[in-house]
Amino acid sequence: MSERHPEPNRSPSFPLPANSRIGILGGGQLGRMTALAAARLGLQSVIYTPEENSPAAQVADAAVVADWDDAAAVARFLGQVDAVTLEFENVPVDLLRRIGETHAMRPGPRALEVAQDRLAEKSFVRDAGIGTAPFAEVNGPSDLDAALPEIGPRGVLKTRRFGYDGKGQTFIESADDAEAAWRQIGEAPAILEAFVPFEREVSVIVARDAAGALCSYDVVDNVHEAGRHILSRTTAPSTLPPETAAAAVAAAETLARALEIVGLLAVEFFVLEDGKVWVNEIAPRPHNSGHWTMDACLTDQFEQLVRAVAGLPLGPATRLHDAVMHNILGDEMLAMAEAGGGVPEDALAQWLGDPDVRLHLYGKAEARAGRKMGHINRLLPLTPAGNAARPD
Amino acid sequence: MSERHPEPNRSPSFPLPANSRIGILGGGQLGRMTALAAARLGLQSVIYTPEENSPAAQVADAAVVADWDDAAAVARFLGQVDAVTLEFENVPVDLLRRIGETHAMRPGPRALEVAQDRLAEKSFVRDAGIGTAPFAEVNGPSDLDAALPEIGPRGVLKTRRFGYDGKGQTFIESADDAEAAWRQIGEAPAILEAFVPFEREVSVIVARDAAGALCSYDVVDNVHEAGRHILSRTTAPSTLPPETAAAAVAAAETLARALEIVGLLAVEFFVLEDGKVWVNEIAPRPHNSGHWTMDACLTDQFEQLVRAVAGLPLGPATRLHDAVMHNILGDEMLAMAEAGGGVPEDALAQWLGDPDVRLHLYGKAEARAGRKMGHINRLLPLTPAGNAARPD
Repeated sequence: MSERHPEPNRSPSFPLPANSRIGILGGGQLGRMTALAAARLGLQSVIYTPEENSPAAQVADAAVVADWDDAAAVARFLGQVDAVTLEFENVPVDLLRRIGETHAMRPGPRALEVAQDRLAEKSFVRDAGIGTAPFAEVNGPSDLDAALPEIGPRGVLKTRRFGYDGKGQTFIESADDAEAAWRQIGEAPAILEAFVPFEREVSVIVARDAAGALCSYDVVDNVHEAGRHILSRTTAPSTLPPETAAAAVAAAETLARALEIVGLLAVEFFVLEDGKVWVNEIAPRPHNSGHWTMDACLTDQFEQLVRAVAGLPLGPATRLHDAVMHNILGDEMLAMAEAGGGVPEDALAQWLGDPDVRLHLYGKAEARAGRKMGHINRLLPLTPAGNAARPD
Repeated sequence: MSERHPEPNRSPSFPLPANSRIGILGGGQLGRMTALAAARLGLQSVIYTPEENSPAAQVADAAVVADWDDAAAVARFLGQVDAVTLEFENVPVDLLRRIGETHAMRPGPRALEVAQDRLAEKSFVRDAGIGTAPFAEVNGPSDLDAALPEIGPRGVLKTRRFGYDGKGQTFIESADDAEAAWRQIGEAPAILEAFVPFEREVSVIVARDAAGALCSYDVVDNVHEAGRHILSRTTAPSTLPPETAAAAVAAAETLARALEIVGLLAVEFFVLEDGKVWVNEIAPRPHNSGHWTMDACLTDQFEQLVRAVAGLPLGPATRLHDAVMHNILGDEMLAMAEAGGGVPEDALAQWLGDPDVRLHLYGKAEARAGRKMGHINRLLPLTPAGNAARPD
């Protein structure tokens, strides 16, 4: 932080000049890495987050710590920034609308509205002509009883809102589970999704600038923690056949265009045994499955977002290395500490000394189970596969 | 910055645990990039600098803006940090001594004492058995007259202290220039160095940890701005013959060992026509000629410094790409703005769209002639040459 702030430019012209300030809604590691990318390009960051001493605020120029509905705090935040982006999906859509009245809000409210509500998301994907699992709206036990014969009997019941990392969802193996499942997700508006017997999970991150230029990263393979929906490992590029990978990229780009994203859209897919790609989830922000780009691509996902927000040209998404990204969860650090009898940091030495590994930690003071503490990128020799494009 | 700070650990154990705070003396771009590297490893930074709104403070967790001799400010700074390093060579040595009484000061005062005084520096290099240009102490016109026949007649008169980027030095072509030269450097204690007809300039950056392990980066070729002593371009690796490169690395490592550096030592050399390497200058801090490592090495110079300071193992200095680093000076940005009729940022698009270039800007609001505003690293295919080692 600095002790004196220059007056921000209230009606900025794009591209934003050096030392402009990007406002970031959300204070987690995605905001932290976005702020670090902004710094590399000579831009400053201001974080808005309800969280004290957040990972993003530690590296940003300034932070406003307040609830999302604190109008005075929002005004204070907006008075300091030239454009606004987000790193957290569950920012109230109304807040984005309000910001959009006076500031470039990138992405805009429409993308968030869709991403926040699984029913809107699934409907949007289907209406865009992109494959997704069969689904039905569930507002009570009777809806669920009616939907199960059509969608199920096996299915996943998910709350429409505020789910992430597997929270707010439960499997249904038979109609007998229906009542318990409905209670388990808190009896909140939900959707029932057909259980998809997928061969693997992949994702695509696509960047889109204000002029509509698109630039996608290579399709990657994702493996989630067993029994939890937390990403464990990303392998770049995916080993999918090229035509399947191309279909995933085309689907992601269609969605980014339809949402008029300015910034990033991450799209998670199930790949079925027959090679079909079905959208699982979308997120209009940097994505955990794009962390490999930090050390393996010429322009990483965070810099790409900053460029789109600042009105700079998108950068080449060229892959310079193959890579495997491995999340470091709180569990792992706690286990390492226990096994080694020392502080977890001693155990980090194994990565710090590995000649192929780059370590990233998020500045979180306390390791907790399921908490993302950092990640490593293991760099591997570049293979010719992959589909990353230069900006069109 | 964050709005609330956890209490720092007053008697830290090394390696520093996550969220520990590294104090950085100096607020320039070297401190900025050190703070960004610390953030990547989950560490926080506190900047001490006399400069308001400095490049480093923009990305650090906190900053103390005060003069070097402000004891209360120093105490406030030390109360927030677990270990201290520097990015600026002209910090008073006494301050480092004082910091060393209560904190790990890395590097320590000895390295700075030598680097701050060209006479001490040259004497130290010579005493370590490493080649350097003939030199003589000059405390007045009579010393100069006496030294010229021995060292000259061509030579370079340099103030002993506070010279950087070519400031405080002047060429002497013949004894007739002596009086004017003495006046030009401000009649300050000086040394006369023999003019060295070098074939090229190279540099080596060596890291040393608290246990004495050394790790050197590849030798690089440096080209300075014509007529100014400001680095213009660094090419990695150097095209020197391997045995000459090895001699430069060996010399740099000898000096790092002799100074008991904990952190980085950058050593600039003249390479003579006969292949001899003579030390020109040393700097116990990150160095402009090491900026290429940011995008081309597994562990860059800034992360390497942070590791040494935090007591983490040094990282592999493995070169992943060849690279050419090009400084962006204020002059260039001013010229681009003039030629394009627009803001300098428009002209940056040429680099932002280049598929081989990574751009780094330092957050300096105002472009001035000779001011380092940023740099680009152009990545090139990896060649087998080079001498970078894993930590020993």
